[in-house]
Amino acid sequence: MLRGTWHSAGTAASVVRRLVRLLSSAHTPRVSEKRGPYAQLEDFDLSMFERLLGTSAVLTDPNDVEPYNEDWLRTCKGSSQLVLLPRSTEEVSAVLSHCHARRLAVCPQGGNTGLVGGSVPVFDEIVLSTSRMRELSALDSLSGTLVCQAGCVLESLEEWASQEGLTLPLDLGAKGSCQIGGNVATNAGGLRLLRYGSLHDNVLGLEVVLADGTVLDSLRTLRKDNAGYDLKQLFIGSEGTLGLVTQVALQCAPRPKALGVAFLGCRQFEDVLATFRAARAALPEFLSSFELMDLESVRCVWENMGLRSPIGEHAFYILVELAGSDESNLEGSLLKFVEEAMKQQWVSDGTIAQSATHMKELWQIREMVAESLRLDGYVYKYDISVPLCSYMKAVELVRERVGDGATRVCGFGHMGDSNLHLNVTSPTYSAAVLARIEPFIYEWTAQQKGSISAEHGIGLLKKKFLHLNKSAAAVQLMRSIKQCLDPRGILNPYKVIPEEL
Amino acid sequence: MLRGTWHSAGTAASVVRRLVRLLSSAHTPRVSEKRGPYAQLEDFDLSMFERLLGTSAVLTDPNDVEPYNEDWLRTCKGSSQLVLLPRSTEEVSAVLSHCHARRLAVCPQGGNTGLVGGSVPVFDEIVLSTSRMRELSALDSLSGTLVCQAGCVLESLEEWASQEGLTLPLDLGAKGSCQIGGNVATNAGGLRLLRYGSLHDNVLGLEVVLADGTVLDSLRTLRKDNAGYDLKQLFIGSEGTLGLVTQVALQCAPRPKALGVAFLGCRQFEDVLATFRAARAALPEFLSSFELMDLESVRCVWENMGLRSPIGEHAFYILVELAGSDESNLEGSLLKFVEEAMKQQWVSDGTIAQSATHMKELWQIREMVAESLRLDGYVYKYDISVPLCSYMKAVELVRERVGDGATRVCGFGHMGDSNLHLNVTSPTYSAAVLARIEPFIYEWTAQQKGSISAEHGIGLLKKKFLHLNKSAAAVQLMRSIKQCLDPRGILNPYKVIPEEL
Repeated sequence: MLRGTWHSAGTAASVVRRLVRLLSSAHTPRVSEKRGPYAQLEDFDLSMFERLLGTSAVLTDPNDVEPYNEDWLRTCKGSSQLVLLPRSTEEVSAVLSHCHARRLAVCPQGGNTGLVGGSVPVFDEIVLSTSRMRELSALDSLSGTLVCQAGCVLESLEEWASQEGLTLPLDLGAKGSCQIGGNVATNAGGLRLLRYGSLHDNVLGLEVVLADGTVLDSLRTLRKDNAGYDLKQLFIGSEGTLGLVTQVALQCAPRPKALGVAFLGCRQFEDVLATFRAARAALPEFLSSFELMDLESVRCVWENMGLRSPIGEHAFYILVELAGSDESNLEGSLLKFVEEAMKQQWVSDGTIAQSATHMKELWQIREMVAESLRLDGYVYKYDISVPLCSYMKAVELVRERVGDGATRVCGFGHMGDSNLHLNVTSPTYSAAVLARIEPFIYEWTAQQKGSISAEHGIGLLKKKFLHLNKSAAAVQLMRSIKQCLDPRGILNPYKVIPEEL
Repeated sequence: MLRGTWHSAGTAASVVRRLVRLLSSAHTPRVSEKRGPYAQLEDFDLSMFERLLGTSAVLTDPNDVEPYNEDWLRTCKGSSQLVLLPRSTEEVSAVLSHCHARRLAVCPQGGNTGLVGGSVPVFDEIVLSTSRMRELSALDSLSGTLVCQAGCVLESLEEWASQEGLTLPLDLGAKGSCQIGGNVATNAGGLRLLRYGSLHDNVLGLEVVLADGTVLDSLRTLRKDNAGYDLKQLFIGSEGTLGLVTQVALQCAPRPKALGVAFLGCRQFEDVLATFRAARAALPEFLSSFELMDLESVRCVWENMGLRSPIGEHAFYILVELAGSDESNLEGSLLKFVEEAMKQQWVSDGTIAQSATHMKELWQIREMVAESLRLDGYVYKYDISVPLCSYMKAVELVRERVGDGATRVCGFGHMGDSNLHLNVTSPTYSAAVLARIEPFIYEWTAQQKGSISAEHGIGLLKKKFLHLNKSAAAVQLMRSIKQCLDPRGILNPYKVIPEEL
């Protein structure tokens, strides 16, 4: 049975009120680090920065600096006293050149939407924010290439691209705030990777300022370029520890003329697997998202945000999105696929979006899961990759382990990429709950040959678990590369690479 | 008008005879290099290698060694006296560990189908061939992942994948001989990049043996893994200078159930551009190849191989391939597209393949261009990326410059990726012809912000032009990385990185 019903409860204002109340009680767990061998900021440094950038680009008032010190999840907080807001590559270069000479530690920051404490200072690092670097340099509709400064917000880039009949290869929940430079630095994955591939492919070129201020110009817009080492790859996903991205050239895709969304319910995980297998086989050229939510995730969106699932209670909900160039091809393919999945009894109920508004409403459930979990109080977030055969197993195991200690244990995510967001909530932060989840979840993931960080990165918070995923030789090679590119260690210190014992 | 006619002339045997005759007269231009500070091979080294690998894996007879010393184009020839044929990662590790300790130079070799002299020794480097490493370790139809040893031949992998309903993301002319390890080492592009993306995205994991014998295990099969630096990216496209790839994990795509091929003729390049723009806009999810050949390329296939174009004489020929899951969707879309292109008069004649055999025949023209050019005598090959607006300009300019000195100047290639193969032929090698092409072609390409090597790499032959594409800072960073990973410089010396002046 296919339906198009929709329910909503609770107003935006009431949701915001609850959010503010809960956030103000959020707990920041302490991370024990030892301050590195960096110089202390002196008055003459400030004068130098003001000379280089102008006084309005040098923030020292604690009220101005405050928002740059704390991350979105409020789990990490630094004590930086200085935020710099350069507008150009030359300014970034001049700043880093000075910091390198003086050995001043620097924390590069984009939209500060990271989830592993990678984008905020740990101690008193200077925050070097790309927020004022928002220029779109070029957009070529024939080749589909876009060139822009690192501080451009993802959603703005999507708007620009759409005016030329293009779409970005990247879409994620934080698109309204996250910046493309930060996306590159964290190798952001998101909702469309299944269709358009990763940033390692879609970033055609980068301009990067190295630790000593050297500008590395790899800002090409070519689909193929095998002239020497592909140096830009080093910086994609290195979380600001090897260089600061100042400009990005992206491959955009032709904007799909037609979209189709189905919201499906399955009774058991085996049925979800069968549905996925069928979708990959039947709709490979159209499939742009295959998202999974378990019952608890969807229940949370209803209880905390007032958005109700369009179909009745199921153990699992799938959101399938198709994108293509021909409306009738797409509609026919989606309908045929859903009918077959229901005939095979993999899917026991579902709805296909009947309009653009309906489509947005269906997507909203998926997009609101993370936000709604925050309203439970404290969220323990895990972003893992696991082979599909054991994809939901982690949720069961953690649920057993935390027992009554948690408000909620749920799993959702980009199943099409084997990427699971496992979340646990409790009214306030509890070390006891944490101890029941960690290191268990990381060790289990490593045993499954999964990744302890599918798309969020390592940052500060996951550093101590890196050895579970990377061999000693790999960690040693990471150290050698860091040493090679940033010998004085000034770029985003204390992050990603574990200390040598 | 759409037709399905086909002509053929000349037998395979006559072609082979002409090929052999011409090849035996091919000229090898000298490359001036100074032998590096490496140790000379001693008897005890040979004994050690025989102990590590067994005597049958240690080739020293000049007749056995000969084929490993010369490249496919017969433009580069080394004088190695030793070829090693390990079967396992452990054997590669043991060999490199010994070579590192002794400072013996090593030339890693896969299928030896490279076009820039990267896969053969320059002096007496030990050839370390992956030819006996041909094990397929795993193939998972649900996730589409394939894991295999580096020596697997691309065509064999495609056969294995097809049995599980999958297709490799990579296809190229040399598929019958090239090995996946070499494909990774050269970041091979090929015919399907437009659809499936590059190896930087499709290689999910690598196992690499570093210069000192350390095994770096990054052999994951995950679509998303942001746990620390993505170290495998370093080795993709580094042409064996940073490590030797021993195992590869690849993302395969669902095998298309339907294919469509059209062979189209255009009067002028502006019409080709309009056709490309229309194809990208109308068929984005189906488009798997957009290949261009100029008249001279197609004429060469006819004159030298006896394969005639299915349509009359045109300045340009386009081969469009679509791939999808539904035959009728695909046929309808292709027909609609071709009809529109003819109505707009971008395309003045064309044929749509009516059967699988017909499809192969159309592809054969494109695939035979490189082979047929060799039958002219000596081939000067250029593999560049240029923005589409000046895509064919290079051919005109070089034609003017070489004048009567050349048998033929032609251009063909993966236009969908802005990748042009510019080829010049003459009866035998001529320094005078070369001097009219180089460095002009590289300098011109660099001025267009193109790439002097789109997919073939730098190897030995293009090293002296690298500075045209890479800034001094970039070349310096390449040197630092090489020093970091291979401090004794034993891996594929004399290649890729220009000497410091």
